[in-house]
Order: sequence, then C-alpha cells, then structure tokens
Amino acid sequence: MRVSTRGDVAPFIVMDVMEQAARLEAQGRRIIHMEVGQPGTAAPEVARTRLAAEMNEGPLGYTGALGLPALRARIAQLYRDWYNVDLNPERVVITTGSSGGFTLAFTSLFDVGAKVGIGMPGYPSYKAILQALGLETVAISCAPENRYQPVPADLPDDLDGLLVASPANPSGTMLDREALSALIGAVQAKHAAFISDEIYHGIDYEQRPVTALEVSDDVYVINSFSKYFSMTGWRVGWMVVPEDHIRRVERLAQNFFICPPHASQIAALAAFDGEAELTANVAVYTRNRALMLEGLSEAGFTKIAPPDGAFYIYADVSDFTEDSLAFAREILEEAGVAVTPGVDFDPERGHHMMRFSYARATGDIEEGLARLKAFMARR
Amino acid sequence: MRVSTRGDVAPFIVMDVMEQAARLEAQGRRIIHMEVGQPGTAAPEVARTRLAAEMNEGPLGYTGALGLPALRARIAQLYRDWYNVDLNPERVVITTGSSGGFTLAFTSLFDVGAKVGIGMPGYPSYKAILQALGLETVAISCAPENRYQPVPADLPDDLDGLLVASPANPSGTMLDREALSALIGAVQAKHAAFISDEIYHGIDYEQRPVTALEVSDDVYVINSFSKYFSMTGWRVGWMVVPEDHIRRVERLAQNFFICPPHASQIAALAAFDGEAELTANVAVYTRNRALMLEGLSEAGFTKIAPPDGAFYIYADVSDFTEDSLAFAREILEEAGVAVTPGVDFDPERGHHMMRFSYARATGDIEEGLARLKAFMARR
Repeated sequence: MRVSTRGDVAPFIVMDVMEQAARLEAQGRRIIHMEVGQPGTAAPEVARTRLAAEMNEGPLGYTGALGLPALRARIAQLYRDWYNVDLNPERVVITTGSSGGFTLAFTSLFDVGAKVGIGMPGYPSYKAILQALGLETVAISCAPENRYQPVPADLPDDLDGLLVASPANPSGTMLDREALSALIGAVQAKHAAFISDEIYHGIDYEQRPVTALEVSDDVYVINSFSKYFSMTGWRVGWMVVPEDHIRRVERLAQNFFICPPHASQIAALAAFDGEAELTANVAVYTRNRALMLEGLSEAGFTKIAPPDGAFYIYADVSDFTEDSLAFAREILEEAGVAVTPGVDFDPERGHHMMRFSYARATGDIEEGLARLKAFMARR
Repeated sequence: MRVSTRGDVAPFIVMDVMEQAARLEAQGRRIIHMEVGQPGTAAPEVARTRLAAEMNEGPLGYTGALGLPALRARIAQLYRDWYNVDLNPERVVITTGSSGGFTLAFTSLFDVGAKVGIGMPGYPSYKAILQALGLETVAISCAPENRYQPVPADLPDDLDGLLVASPANPSGTMLDREALSALIGAVQAKHAAFISDEIYHGIDYEQRPVTALEVSDDVYVINSFSKYFSMTGWRVGWMVVPEDHIRRVERLAQNFFICPPHASQIAALAAFDGEAELTANVAVYTRNRALMLEGLSEAGFTKIAPPDGAFYIYADVSDFTEDSLAFAREILEEAGVAVTPGVDFDPERGHHMMRFSYARATGDIEEGLARLKAFMARR
C-alpha cells in the first residue's frame, strides 16, 4: 500500500538504548534509568481521589473542545499566582498534552511550506511534527556560550515562526526576561509567530522562569500537566492563545480532537490542590540536581551548563567520544546506567553530547552516580 | 499575528442550534436532545471500578506509543469474536479516540495535495482534518438509492485514497460484504488507500456489520471506544494497519501523541468485561429505533432510509423546507426538540435534510416524538 513521504519521520535513537536496557533487565540486571523524561511519581493523591468519586457521578461525555471552564479558570489563576499576569480564562485552551498543543498551534499559524525555527539542541518531536504537517524546520544551532538557547542574531530573515523552550530539554537552561524579550521582539519584527514551550515551568531552582505572556500577548504559550503536576500518562496540557485566535483554535480542536480526555481534566483540576506533594517532588529534584552536579563532575563530566530548570543535564562528552550512541551503549552495558545520546536532540553536534535525567528517586540517582564514577575510573 | 489558510476550517453549523438550546434551557425550558452524537450512558461500571483501583497501584506514566499490549491483544480477540478474523495484535494501534486515528492515517498515507475521497453526507470533521493537513477533499455525492453510500461508479480516476464509514453518520446505513468488497477492489485498482471508519460497529440492528479486514489486509481500519463501549469523553480508540505500516505509524504516534491516555486505556481494557451493560445499551437503541421509525413517519417525516446501525436517522425534509438550519431553529423554538440540520454533513444537499439522533434514554425519545408530532400537526 502507498505511503507518504512526510510520514517518514525519524525514529528516536534513544529507543535503541531503551530496548537494550529492557533486554538487560529481562536478564535480571538492575538498570538505573537516567534516560527517562518523566517523573517517577504519580499524579497527586487528591487528583486520583477526586476522579474516583466524580467518575461515578456523570457519564464523562465530551467536554467542550476548549476544555472544562473550571479548569480553564484555574489555569488563568495560576498565571496570576506564579507570574502576576492577568489572563482572560477564555484564552486558555485545554489540550491533549502539550503534544496536542503543537498540532493546534502549527496548523493554526502555518501554511504548508512555512519555515519554523527551532533551537538545536531541542526536543526531537518538534521537527517530526513539523515534517508530518508539511512544514520546513529551520534548525538553529545554539551556541554553548548562549547556554544552548537561540539569540536574535541566530535568526534568519525569512522565518515564519520560532519555537523556544525555557527551561529547555535537553539542557535545562532558561531565558531570562531580557533574553526572552529580545527574542520575541526580533521574531515579531519579522512578522513571524512566537511559540513558547513552557512545559518545565514549576521545576526550577535558582530563579523563577519567565512566561512569554509577561512580554507579549501576541504569542502562543504551550504547557502541560505532565512535568510539574506529575501527570505524563494522563495526556492533558494547555495552550494560551491571543484573543483573536480563540475561535479558530476552537474549530481546529473540535475537528482534530473533539475534546481533551474528560477524566484527565477532572484529575488535572484537582491536582492544583495537591501542592504539598508537588512541592515535595520539586524538593527531590533539587536534591538530585545538587548530587548530579557534584557527582557527574567527580566522574569526569565537567563540561556542563548548570541547569536552571527541568530535570536534565546536557554534558559535552567530546573528551571521551565522538559517537554518543556507542558511548551510551557502553555506559549501559558496563555501568548499568541508561542515558540518552545527544543525537536525538541535535543531529549535527549531538554525537559528542549526552543527556542525563535526574527525574527519578534520589536513591536511584545516588546509585547511578556511584556506578558512573566507577565506570569512568575504570575506563 | 499571522494565521494560516489551512487553519480556517468551517465551524459546525449545529453549534448554532446547540447554543440556542442552551439559551432556552437557561430560560427554564426543557429541551429534548436529538442532536447529540454520543450515548447518555457512562463507561461500564467495571471500567470505572478497575481504574479507581489501578490508579493507586502505579504512576500511570507514558505507555508505549502503540498502547498497552494487553489492550492491543484484547482488541485482536474482538476481531476473532465478532468477525472470525485472525488478527496479529501488533497491527492494533491504540489511538487518542478515532480522531487520533484520522491524524495518524492521513499523515502516514498522504502527502500534501493528495486527493482523498469522502462520501457526502458524512462526518464533517473528515473534511476539516484533511484541509488542516494540506490534503484535498474529493466530495463524493452519494445517491439516496445507494442509501447514501459510495459505489465504485462514483469514484473519480485520480484518487489517492477513499474514506468510508459503515454504519455511516448521519445515515446509519451499512455496506454489506459485497458492496464493501466492490469498493475496496475499485480503490485498490486505482492504487489508492482504503480507510474504513467502523466507529459504530456493535450498534447494529438487523444484520451484523462487515469489517474491511474481512475483505483485505491492505487497509486502515479506524474504531473507537466512544460509541458501543459508551466512552466518548475518555478519548480512546484504535486503528488496525497493514503489518508493514506498524513502525511508521508508531513513529508518527510517538511524535504526535507520545501515547494515548493511560487511564483511559485501563478503563477501555476493563470495559470488555462490562458486556451486560453494553448489551443493555444496544437494547435501548433498538427500542428507540423502532419508536423513531414509527413516530417520525407519523409526524410526517416519511422519506428515510431505515438505519442499519448507529443511532441516527437521516430524513429528507424537502417537503417542508429548503433551509434545514431555519427549520431546525423552528423545531427547537416551537417544539423544544434539538435536531441537526443536514448542511454539516452535506453542504450541497443538506439544506433539505435533517439528522435525528436516538442515542438518549427511551423516555426522552418518546417525549421528543410526541412533541414533533404535535408540532408537525400544528404547522
């Protein structure tokens, strides 16, 4: 049967590592997972309790395409609490994870063939979704001295949009208010669209992250309940759009999704009442981050930009390899630690980069670091 | 801010009716809902009970992009039980509702500009999703004498794909094995892709529906837990793809969705154990259908093709109006019954067609029919 060209999206190279890890685990070995991009914790208990009650009270049919009004209002309140931003709840679109937000944003903003800039290194699905939607990815190679974030001078003239993540995956680095303002200004001067991926907001360590909405209302902001709210598998997130885009995004959402998962929306709304658990999760990441910065350095991984947020450290491993996939396989085989080679995030320079995740329990982090130190000492 | 052309998808005209219904309800009037496309019942009790237990046993993180293996295997078993088809569970892709299946199927199969045929009348989101993905809709006007289903003679030569629904929305008519085989043969002879929307399977009345998999393995089949399993808001469905398409669809799913909602997958798997409830729901639809066929005819709506499945009746109302939207508004205002004008399903001929849904409780159907009879007698 026929297939499309645009559907030939690249596989994730980390899958190779994950399959090898699964094979080793099937053989009885204990593997420490520093490749994962999700919390090991569940949704807050109150979210599960509330859903268990509410799912017996009504049929949980379709909600409106933009989501439950109470959830949209609660998210608008989050912008008041976290950023002191006054946000019209009508501008909040509940999405099927941040993934759903990308599909809606890209189709609302860009016609086929449009050029959309993404910083490298970056989340690999950006490029795959753009390709599958008939859009052209403009890969912007971000300098280590800019902490792997794009700056205005990096932007080509003929750009239809720019997608930026802060805190970023895989680097964990953030754009401060000045840097973000400069980027948004440069993009808007080109009459291009600015999309801000803020999925790691809430998981930050030394300074609070800045939302693009503090700088401009004329942006798309994408966020999710997956990371700070610890609800990856629930597939619920949100997007904030300019007021005059609400109706078009609603129509796209009606057709592409009908609505986000109703049960997940109920759990998400209740998750706001689980702040004690969520704060405790961030305390774990904070402790893990300190252990990682010290332990990775002791193991010999010294070329890292300290992460401002998220739960990743992106390390330059060029002193040890020019083939990060082979090196990841070796670390897994020899040390029993699964890590992500940089090639998924940056096809050009990722061959000498590695991403270490510290999303799991502190005991696992300690064990993983001890193994990495012993492995590197032997090597 | 810039917007795309492809994102300018048409609004659902029924929204106008639904908003008017909400206004009347806010004024205290009781409205009978014959416009809705979803069951009024909840997911089976066992689905809710199982999820309530399991969500406290693990973090409900991401599943694999293709879904939980146990759910994929259980769906393969359904093809054995319902159709006597032996299906490799690896070919079953769990999707975020049938909506997610459409996005995956269209991007896997068709490059930008491809021509995809859909029968008119049909589900309005087909066209909107095709447009938003940069594809060209080939609207195939289906004849009443063919019970509003396409036949091989309807197909143009230059077609890249054909999407067919049986039982169909809005007509409820089915393609029997001979008709389906002829269509699939004609499409494959054109080297085009065949996509079978089987979302209403399980809700049928006089003959069992035929799955495209009984005819060919070289098709995409899209289905969902929304209708027979009564789980609309859970956003979980499935797709069956040819064996050599599994990996490409997996990569697309990883990037577009990461995974379908984990909680919904758990509930869906348990729903298979709720057969008594599901059979009782179909018994209600069967009773409603008999009441509708009799009552609509008594009210004067005599030009209908008796529906083989689903919970809709599509009536030719040209004896009464050439403006189905105005007529729907009049029925709502005068009789307090919300119905769907045909223009959403067929822009050309829908101005003299009306869709009546009988998905709700039998008491509502009886009340609605009494109101329609009184209204038509007065008119």
